[in-house]
Amino acid sequence: MKTIQAKITAPKGFQAAGVKAGIKKSGKEDLAVIYSDVPANIAGVFTTNLMAAAPVQVSKQVVQQGKAQAIVVNSGCANACTGEQGLADAKAMTELTAKALKLSADAVAVASTGVIGVNLPMDKIAQGIEKAVSALSYDGHDKAMQAILTTDLVAKEQAYELSLGGKTVRLAGMAKGSGMIHPNMATMLCFITTDAQIAPEILQQALKEAVKVSFNMVTVDGDTSTNDMVLVLANGLAENEVITSTEQADYDAFAKALTALCIDLAKKVARDGEGATKFLEVQVKGAKDFAEGKTVAMSIAKSPLVKTAFFGEDPNWGRIVCAAGYAGVSFDPNVLSLELGGLKIVEKGQGIAVDEKALKKVMAQPDIVLTLDLQQGDTAVTAWTCDFSYEYVKINGEYHT
Amino acid sequence: MKTIQAKITAPKGFQAAGVKAGIKKSGKEDLAVIYSDVPANIAGVFTTNLMAAAPVQVSKQVVQQGKAQAIVVNSGCANACTGEQGLADAKAMTELTAKALKLSADAVAVASTGVIGVNLPMDKIAQGIEKAVSALSYDGHDKAMQAILTTDLVAKEQAYELSLGGKTVRLAGMAKGSGMIHPNMATMLCFITTDAQIAPEILQQALKEAVKVSFNMVTVDGDTSTNDMVLVLANGLAENEVITSTEQADYDAFAKALTALCIDLAKKVARDGEGATKFLEVQVKGAKDFAEGKTVAMSIAKSPLVKTAFFGEDPNWGRIVCAAGYAGVSFDPNVLSLELGGLKIVEKGQGIAVDEKALKKVMAQPDIVLTLDLQQGDTAVTAWTCDFSYEYVKINGEYHT
Repeated sequence: MKTIQAKITAPKGFQAAGVKAGIKKSGKEDLAVIYSDVPANIAGVFTTNLMAAAPVQVSKQVVQQGKAQAIVVNSGCANACTGEQGLADAKAMTELTAKALKLSADAVAVASTGVIGVNLPMDKIAQGIEKAVSALSYDGHDKAMQAILTTDLVAKEQAYELSLGGKTVRLAGMAKGSGMIHPNMATMLCFITTDAQIAPEILQQALKEAVKVSFNMVTVDGDTSTNDMVLVLANGLAENEVITSTEQADYDAFAKALTALCIDLAKKVARDGEGATKFLEVQVKGAKDFAEGKTVAMSIAKSPLVKTAFFGEDPNWGRIVCAAGYAGVSFDPNVLSLELGGLKIVEKGQGIAVDEKALKKVMAQPDIVLTLDLQQGDTAVTAWTCDFSYEYVKINGEYHT
Repeated sequence: MKTIQAKITAPKGFQAAGVKAGIKKSGKEDLAVIYSDVPANIAGVFTTNLMAAAPVQVSKQVVQQGKAQAIVVNSGCANACTGEQGLADAKAMTELTAKALKLSADAVAVASTGVIGVNLPMDKIAQGIEKAVSALSYDGHDKAMQAILTTDLVAKEQAYELSLGGKTVRLAGMAKGSGMIHPNMATMLCFITTDAQIAPEILQQALKEAVKVSFNMVTVDGDTSTNDMVLVLANGLAENEVITSTEQADYDAFAKALTALCIDLAKKVARDGEGATKFLEVQVKGAKDFAEGKTVAMSIAKSPLVKTAFFGEDPNWGRIVCAAGYAGVSFDPNVLSLELGGLKIVEKGQGIAVDEKALKKVMAQPDIVLTLDLQQGDTAVTAWTCDFSYEYVKINGEYHT
């Protein structure tokens, strides 16, 4: 497996476009279409938020069928909490896109991100879809990426190439998400393309497993969005032997690449968290199982006291073990140990003497790894987050509806 | 029931003192003793954090016996994550206090608050206890209150008087807590005195019920402390007919007053949340039961996006219903309604037209009531929190260990 140019159009037969439809107040790109030259298998995971937005409901149905050929996405308006009208608008987005692409409406998935509780400006959306479909190209990735961003500061893309039975297979993904990030099934928005040949149910399985250890391990502010969605389109143009079982060696190789892609994008989401000045990797070792390790890791990653301490570059281990202690997982507080940037600062539940100079250096880094060893079992899990800064408060206190 | 001068020494036979023991860097009062002239019954609730501090472990044993005559408290050092030494130090605090007061050590409860992971300066503590015991007086409430504060900006006290069978009974409480506030059994620290005659198991029952709807409904930052503790001493000097059953009419009257006292102090804790500029009352109506209503209310009250929106005076109802949606409670998103300051802004899950001027006025208030009606049942619950400001980040980013 090797890294190739990070663009959603890297796999064979995928085109993309991003256009300015006039939905965003900023006037920037706000509508994207991703298109496969041939029908593709689709898999997806979605927010578990009860207030799931209209596009989530519509795309779930598309994923259930297992086949799709295009995805239409808008930013600037989430089409969430918009009732029957919202549902009709989300369906209309798929119909308009399908018509322009000469597809049936159920071959188009839809996603939205932006303000909650506002109806889509359907005239602008309709014009934007026309424009985007005409602009589709194998080099349209940049503008497509721009079109799905909201408060994000940087684009989040990645692509890999691997060989399956002598055939070259590519995977590419693009994600957005900066605030309201605490995915429970998926991140804010992530789209993945691949030219691999893989059966839809096997693709769904691979995606579920990849999301579990990537997007579902990221938190910026603990808020699970109404619009979270990860979609993957697999169009089979790589002509590898079709993957129809998780027992195949090719499945392992594909799943590994998909997981690596999702982890890479998930880390980019945490790194670009609203107001972030530091990227934190929270490793919990010695957990009894994945669920318990995740609960402890996320409790630490979500703690405002931990996050503000990192912002202040303070190695406040008391806040870290405190957050572990209230996670709701049973462990022996007298055996745990904690490392910051590889420096052990807690042993048997108590602080130990540490090289203050070295520790200060660790805390001054933009990337910090925190390793908590519960010593209760053999499972290790990793979560990613960022610090909590003045800028987070500014962005969210001044972002007005 | 009527409000009387808010001081921990309001009930008959209670003395208090607060002294400067030199534990706090600021040099302010940091050690308090509360003393009853006669043996009292004691009840208490404690943090559920696994990393429970040494004083929590020691005071739990005192509460189990049901009898105590004094409480010793220090601020500036939490004596948490301090292992065997910490436990020995907490016990030594009770022994030193008992010796000075000529009591047995198991008649003294102990509490600490401050930095985690640091051992108590026992020489300073010992001198402080001597000083405090000599300073005990019926007017010592002010300095005792000061001595338990850390980042608190204001003192939190309240006292009530009620009549039980012709006898005047008084209850008084003092609380501290401003950060690391998300009590799961109790707030950071709260001490309550009463001259009522009430059996210890009945007192414990009344306290548990009071805490459930007061301190356990407050969150500042979602961080449950290692040191949370609520203690109540009942010395019986009011000479009311002893309350020995929850079936007695006097129990109802007493429990009501105790609950009112706890709610009053809990609201004071939320209002004084670190960096708070607004006090938020989150009412959830129409819940199936208390647990579900609480889960939804706390999900909203903890959401950084909701809290920063209130800081920005933005009536961002999308963030509020989003937080309800990811709470993990099942409800119909298409029937819920939401009011801000009595103005309805969401009906049947969707935004409705609202008097923008009136809404702006609501959002500009320092106290805001948010009412979410789930329409799934008959239970109403209330939680309290504050907004999330630059100042919160400043306090916790700059507070160094």
